[in-house]
Amino acid sequence: MGSDVNGFATFGPKIPAAYADSECLFVPNIDPVLQARVRSQMPGVRMVCGDTMNYWIADHRANLAKVLKELDVLLINDGEAKMLSGEPNLVRAAAKVMEMGPKILVVKHGEYGATAFFCDRSFVGAKSVSMPFRAPALPLAEVVDPTGAGDSFAGGFYGYLASQPTLTPTVFRTAMFYGGVMGSFAVERFGTERLQSVSREEIEARFRLFKEISHLE
Amino acid sequence: MGSDVNGFATFGPKIPAAYADSECLFVPNIDPVLQARVRSQMPGVRMVCGDTMNYWIADHRANLAKVLKELDVLLINDGEAKMLSGEPNLVRAAAKVMEMGPKILVVKHGEYGATAFFCDRSFVGAKSVSMPFRAPALPLAEVVDPTGAGDSFAGGFYGYLASQPTLTPTVFRTAMFYGGVMGSFAVERFGTERLQSVSREEIEARFRLFKEISHLE
Repeated sequence: MGSDVNGFATFGPKIPAAYADSECLFVPNIDPVLQARVRSQMPGVRMVCGDTMNYWIADHRANLAKVLKELDVLLINDGEAKMLSGEPNLVRAAAKVMEMGPKILVVKHGEYGATAFFCDRSFVGAKSVSMPFRAPALPLAEVVDPTGAGDSFAGGFYGYLASQPTLTPTVFRTAMFYGGVMGSFAVERFGTERLQSVSREEIEARFRLFKEISHLE
Repeated sequence: MGSDVNGFATFGPKIPAAYADSECLFVPNIDPVLQARVRSQMPGVRMVCGDTMNYWIADHRANLAKVLKELDVLLINDGEAKMLSGEPNLVRAAAKVMEMGPKILVVKHGEYGATAFFCDRSFVGAKSVSMPFRAPALPLAEVVDPTGAGDSFAGGFYGYLASQPTLTPTVFRTAMFYGGVMGSFAVERFGTERLQSVSREEIEARFRLFKEISHLE
């Protein structure tokens, strides 16, 4: 590890041998060159989920395009989806982003929840092209620190997907809800404080709450 | 009818005799003085729902306060809820608005759906204070004319409530969904064009779609 002429760390991630046969890979928001380098060290993954941000979209587009081609799921926010596609309408933005590679695009709307768009429904076990899926966020009277809400969403979402033997529409929808659940805990305290103390019982209770605030019966 | 020194129409709404015994009243976004005048002509209503906007909130607050005191349900958007309460957090804004009178506050989030906050749950037949309810909006690839989306939401929402013999949590939730359904039709064409041609079958099909895009199973 050193730094290049621009001062960027020339960090070279190395996957520990114990992780090399993992089935699910999440490449978080880092330089797409590094995302690709991680991906190449894990040839056996069955699902790859990724994140990115405005900086890479604006100035590292060619490298990002290579990563997007290989993604199963891309998790970004409204602004990033519109910037990446150059399209102000979210549905059309989602279609354009999925043409770049991802089979599924999950767009996070902050306090309004998140929407999943499907390019290839067969990926989640559904036969036909269908409508998007919208998961709620929990209205909170106090948001102590929104930092990490999106990453916590990704963790809840992808952790749930990885825990399931098969991917079905219901499994995918449930994962979207767990994403919102973990995001809602993250913002309740500073940094990772709340996530470090949260129990499985609290997570399941909040999952039921997410269902209660969004389901007709 | 004439006009006062400011050029405002001194419109005096008169309720036709055939409407005077209506059980449900909706006072749309007009001068709160007129909203109160309509209300006073309908002493037998069992439920009053109202709307307002930034202009009345900023410059006609005393008159608006009198109307809010008598409302069962207030239907406004995020910006109006925050402006009316002076509170940037939506949950706290909702609590403050409900202290002004409305038992229920429905906040419309445009393309992200709507959230209902409950001050007095017994109004919807629930015994305890509970969480808000979030209804989705339909992601649309083309929005021809957003004018009237909020009024169409109000029509679908309140029309459904008025059609039901009793108000229960499920009836209220269903009304929130019908609000979104009618808003989604309104924006598909210019003006009222789509609403004039929409059939009951199309409405019911879209209601099922709203459920499909938001429910886990």
